[in-house]
Amino acid sequence: MPVKSRKQALRRSRIDRLRCSFSQLRADAILVSNLPNIQYLCGFSGSAGLLLVESSQSTLFTDSRYTFQAREEVTEARVAIATHGLITAVGAALKARQAQKRVAYSTAHVTVAQKAALAAAAGSRIRWVGDIDTVQKQRAVKDAEEIAVMRDAAILISQVFEKTLPKIRPGISELDLAVEIEYTMKKLGASGPSFETIVAAGPHSAWAHARPSSKRLKGGDLVVLDQGAILRAYCSDMTRTVFVGNAPKRVQKLYRAVLEAQEAAKYAIHPGAMAGDVDAAARGVLKGYRFDQYFTHSTGHGLGLEVHEMPRIGRGENTTLQEGMVVTVEPGVYLEGLGGIRIEDDVVVTAKGALDLTTAPRDFLEL
Amino acid sequence: MPVKSRKQALRRSRIDRLRCSFSQLRADAILVSNLPNIQYLCGFSGSAGLLLVESSQSTLFTDSRYTFQAREEVTEARVAIATHGLITAVGAALKARQAQKRVAYSTAHVTVAQKAALAAAAGSRIRWVGDIDTVQKQRAVKDAEEIAVMRDAAILISQVFEKTLPKIRPGISELDLAVEIEYTMKKLGASGPSFETIVAAGPHSAWAHARPSSKRLKGGDLVVLDQGAILRAYCSDMTRTVFVGNAPKRVQKLYRAVLEAQEAAKYAIHPGAMAGDVDAAARGVLKGYRFDQYFTHSTGHGLGLEVHEMPRIGRGENTTLQEGMVVTVEPGVYLEGLGGIRIEDDVVVTAKGALDLTTAPRDFLEL
Repeated sequence: MPVKSRKQALRRSRIDRLRCSFSQLRADAILVSNLPNIQYLCGFSGSAGLLLVESSQSTLFTDSRYTFQAREEVTEARVAIATHGLITAVGAALKARQAQKRVAYSTAHVTVAQKAALAAAAGSRIRWVGDIDTVQKQRAVKDAEEIAVMRDAAILISQVFEKTLPKIRPGISELDLAVEIEYTMKKLGASGPSFETIVAAGPHSAWAHARPSSKRLKGGDLVVLDQGAILRAYCSDMTRTVFVGNAPKRVQKLYRAVLEAQEAAKYAIHPGAMAGDVDAAARGVLKGYRFDQYFTHSTGHGLGLEVHEMPRIGRGENTTLQEGMVVTVEPGVYLEGLGGIRIEDDVVVTAKGALDLTTAPRDFLEL
Repeated sequence: MPVKSRKQALRRSRIDRLRCSFSQLRADAILVSNLPNIQYLCGFSGSAGLLLVESSQSTLFTDSRYTFQAREEVTEARVAIATHGLITAVGAALKARQAQKRVAYSTAHVTVAQKAALAAAAGSRIRWVGDIDTVQKQRAVKDAEEIAVMRDAAILISQVFEKTLPKIRPGISELDLAVEIEYTMKKLGASGPSFETIVAAGPHSAWAHARPSSKRLKGGDLVVLDQGAILRAYCSDMTRTVFVGNAPKRVQKLYRAVLEAQEAAKYAIHPGAMAGDVDAAARGVLKGYRFDQYFTHSTGHGLGLEVHEMPRIGRGENTTLQEGMVVTVEPGVYLEGLGGIRIEDDVVVTAKGALDLTTAPRDFLEL
C-alpha cells in the first residue's frame, strides 16, 4: 500500500527527522536546550527545560512547577521532573548509560558556564560535540500544518491593522496606538504580540526599532507601525507606513521606491535562490533611486515559533531558499530629521515563488 | 566640604562602581554582553549591544539600526557602530590596544560559540577571564532612584488589579481578563507587562505558570492572577488569588495558611538575613498546616530591570540580604484537581525589615 506508507513518512515525527542528523553530527544523542526548539520537537511550552534526544528514547527534563503542564503538553518524550537542577538531572541520566556516548549540543545556545556544568555532571565518559543550528535548520522549512497556522497569524495581524486605521489621527499618542493594536490582536484570538509593537511618528520613525512614546501624532508625520501577533505559538510580523495629512512629493517618491524594492525582492524569491540575491534585488531598486544609503538593515528574516529565525535575508547571505520557508520582506529607508518608511510582509517560498501570507493593503495611505 | 563629597560619592556612576571589581576579577576590562546589564550601566535599551568597560574608557558597540537611538540614550560610554558584527568590532578594538589585556566576560551569558568567536577576533594577546555575575550582584542592590521607580511600578500594578476586580465574574474567559489587565496597565502608563500575564481558573490554577486560555470562569473556581508591569524600564510582579462564589472551608483554610506563610517570610527579611531562612519561614508555616507538600516552588526572587534577578529566595540559598534589595514574597499551594493559591508582593529590604511596595489588599476575596 504505497499511499499509506508515503503518508506515514510525511507524518514521521519531528524528533525522528532530527535523529537523521545523528550520523552527520557523529553523535549518539542531541541535547536540545533552546526553548523554541524544545517546543517544536515535543510540544512543551514552559520556561525551563532540556530535551535529550537519543536514538531509542527522548526525555524532557523540567522542574516541579511544570509537572502538570508537561504531562498535558508533551508528546513523543518521557517527562522527568528534576529536583536538583536540570543540568544535574541530565548529567545523572547520561552517567547511567552503559556505553560511552557522544552527545551533540548547540554552541549557539549553551553558555560557557552551562557547558562546564554539563561536562562535570555527566562525567568523562560523555564526549560533547559542538553543533550550531541543526534544529533551527529543520525549523526553517515549515510543514503544511505550520504554514496554515502562520497564514492565520498573518491574516490576523492584517485585520488588526485595518481595524486600527481609523484611530491613526492627529492627537493620539504612539503609546495609545500601540496599546490599541495589542488589545485588538488579543481580542481577535492572538495569545500576544510577537514583539513589542512599534509605533513611531515623525522624526522618531527614523529609529528602525523605536519604542512607542507618549508623543502625539500630528499633521505632516510619517508613522511607522510594525506589529506581529502570536497565534497558536506562531508569529506574524508586518509593517505599514502611513502619512498624517497630504504627503510632500519627496515622501511619495520615497514610498514608491520602498514598495518597488519590496516587489523586486519578492520577485527574486524562489526555491534555489540565494538569500543574498533577494536582499540585492531590494537594494538594487533603492540604488536606482539613489536612496540605498538610507536602507540601513537587512531585507528580511525567517519567521516561525520565533520572530527572528533562519534564514536571514541580508547582504551576501548564501543560504539557499527552500520550498516551505517563511520569511519577511521588509525594505525601508530612514532619513534623520524626516523619518522612516518601511513596508513588511510575510511570505512563504513556494514552487511558484513568494506567496504573500500578509493580506493588508500596501498602498500609501495619507490619513 | 564633606557634604558635597559624600553626595558626589553617592552619584559615582554605575560604571565607576563596576570598575572597582576589576582588581577582584584580576582583569583590566569587562566585556558586558547581557542586555539588561548594558541598560543598567549605560542606558542603552536596544536589542543588540556589547559594552566594553576599560579602566579609562567605555565603549558601547551596536549596529546601524540603533545609530540614532544609541546617540540619544547612551551616557557614560562612547558609541561605536559595528558594520561587520559586534564581536568582530570588539575583537578589533581589543587587538588595537598596545598592552596585553585581561578581559572578564560572563560565562553565564556568553555562549560557547560567542566565546570562540571573541577569542578568534581579539587574538592571542587578550586573556579571557571567566566571571559569572559581577554586574548582577551590583544590580541586586537598588539605589534610591531605582527604588522610587519600583515603588511606582508596584503601585501601578496594584491599581490595575483593583480596576480589574469588577470584571472577575462568571462567564469572562481567562484570556479576556488577561487582555484587560495588560490594556489597563498600559493605559496607566506602563510600557508593557513584565511577563505574560497569568490568569488561571479552576483546576488550571494548579499550574503555577499557566498561560491564559479561552476557558471561562465559573462559580466555584479559584482564580490566580499573576501580573506585572514595566514602568520606566523597571518591573513589578504581583499575584492575587480570588474565589468565584463562596469558598468552602477547606479553601479558606488554605488561603489563610498561604497568607500566614507570606507574613512569616516578610517578617524574616532584614539586612543580614539568609535568603534560605526567609524561604524556610514560609515553608515552616505551611508545614504546620501539613500543606508544605503543595508548595512546589521558591518563596521569591529579586526584581528590577528583569522580572527574575538576584537574589533567589529559595530552599538553602545562602545569599545574605542587603539593604536596598527588592524581592518578591510569593508562597503558594497547588492541588491537582482543586487549583492553586498564591499571594505575591514586592518588598524592599530596609534597615527596619521588609517594606511592602505592593499596595493591593491581600484579604481573601469571594466574588
